[in-house]
Amino acid sequence: MRTLKLTIAYDGTRFVGWQRQAEGESIQGLLEDALAHFEGGRVTVHGAGRTDAGVHALGQTASVQLTCGHTAETLSRALNAHLPEEVRVLSVEEAAPDFHARFNARSKTYRYQIRTTPIADPFTRAYEWHIPEALDIAAMRQGAQALVGTHDFAAFRSAGGETAGTVRTVTRSELSDRSGLLTYEIAGDGFLRHMVRALVGTLVEVGRGWRAPDNIGALLQGATRDHAGRTAPPHGLFLVRVDYH
Amino acid sequence: MRTLKLTIAYDGTRFVGWQRQAEGESIQGLLEDALAHFEGGRVTVHGAGRTDAGVHALGQTASVQLTCGHTAETLSRALNAHLPEEVRVLSVEEAAPDFHARFNARSKTYRYQIRTTPIADPFTRAYEWHIPEALDIAAMRQGAQALVGTHDFAAFRSAGGETAGTVRTVTRSELSDRSGLLTYEIAGDGFLRHMVRALVGTLVEVGRGWRAPDNIGALLQGATRDHAGRTAPPHGLFLVRVDYH
Repeated sequence: MRTLKLTIAYDGTRFVGWQRQAEGESIQGLLEDALAHFEGGRVTVHGAGRTDAGVHALGQTASVQLTCGHTAETLSRALNAHLPEEVRVLSVEEAAPDFHARFNARSKTYRYQIRTTPIADPFTRAYEWHIPEALDIAAMRQGAQALVGTHDFAAFRSAGGETAGTVRTVTRSELSDRSGLLTYEIAGDGFLRHMVRALVGTLVEVGRGWRAPDNIGALLQGATRDHAGRTAPPHGLFLVRVDYH
Repeated sequence: MRTLKLTIAYDGTRFVGWQRQAEGESIQGLLEDALAHFEGGRVTVHGAGRTDAGVHALGQTASVQLTCGHTAETLSRALNAHLPEEVRVLSVEEAAPDFHARFNARSKTYRYQIRTTPIADPFTRAYEWHIPEALDIAAMRQGAQALVGTHDFAAFRSAGGETAGTVRTVTRSELSDRSGLLTYEIAGDGFLRHMVRALVGTLVEVGRGWRAPDNIGALLQGATRDHAGRTAPPHGLFLVRVDYH
């Protein structure tokens, strides 16, 4: 038995998300089915982040245990030949026997893209939330900065998500604005379900002037989900990278 | 009666091309149908370049004569509200009464994108021809340079295209290579049907070492279509801009 680490990019537009579901195509399901073909038996792939339906990945990572003797390079090519074009295996590497993509992850980085020009870009529309109204970027930046540190993010978890253990450490929370494309990047040791999208939705409400920038800090003091902003749509979100020790 | 100049961007992936056809959705057809709605009668839209099925545009231009009194700004907003997301009207401007987008065009610029990395990019796959083999960029550049000037491009016209008048002037023909994305830009006073794609297909054969760079110059000396390379796929091609006097 050997353990492999996979790095995967995908356009999540037409998938039900990372996780295998009863209905619809999932990234996990596609990978497991392709690997089962080479392994000659059932395979379980563990992803670092369970991205939701419509969310993309530039560098999702996954771990899998296999017995087959193909080289990592051969498996990588064979997987890409089998998978649909929207899903690309960027690398397959041999890993320590006990490596687990989710439990061993030290840090994850997510990116959210907002197009602020009056007219949406037809070529990137599937990867950007289009907000043609003017946003107060300075206020959003101030709000984003308040998220850095160890906080209780209970106000930003989804209704169906975790009920206990809502404390997380955010190491980076930055907004950059370049010719009509607003990019938010956040890195941390872990994220609650829908947390990044709830944070982005709340920061946009700060940008629209519906909330003061210091409201973000107040939401981290034991507020509940209904106090925070609306969840941003999935198609602007990317899992950028996962780091390990 | 007033004449308007429209500038339009579109993702051509799912369309039959610029020109209205008996079957399928065309950009011209979508614009004519939307404008007929505001005009209250039939409308003809003339495009500067009749892009083929699957070809994109960053700045197609079109002219149309209307009697309706809506401002250009109102028409622009109304068109974007009516059109599918893949087609965006970037501007609507009042033009001289005799302005015609095709007959008055002085120069057109096309861009062709080739992804040369071993693995295709899942987010830009619809806008790039993926060639994972190594290409000799210096040789391709030499071939591209030979196209500048006034030449007979008969070897690069499609079978069903023009039979007479195959002389055109190319003012720019440049290749740039940036981290795995090879971009070819060509500008000129006019282009024969499939000419840019035939040029790109032939330049790629130079890059693959199947042809010498100086073969390009030889093809401009009265050669026929079967002497040039294969037509490159449509999805890497963009009509970038159209210039007028």
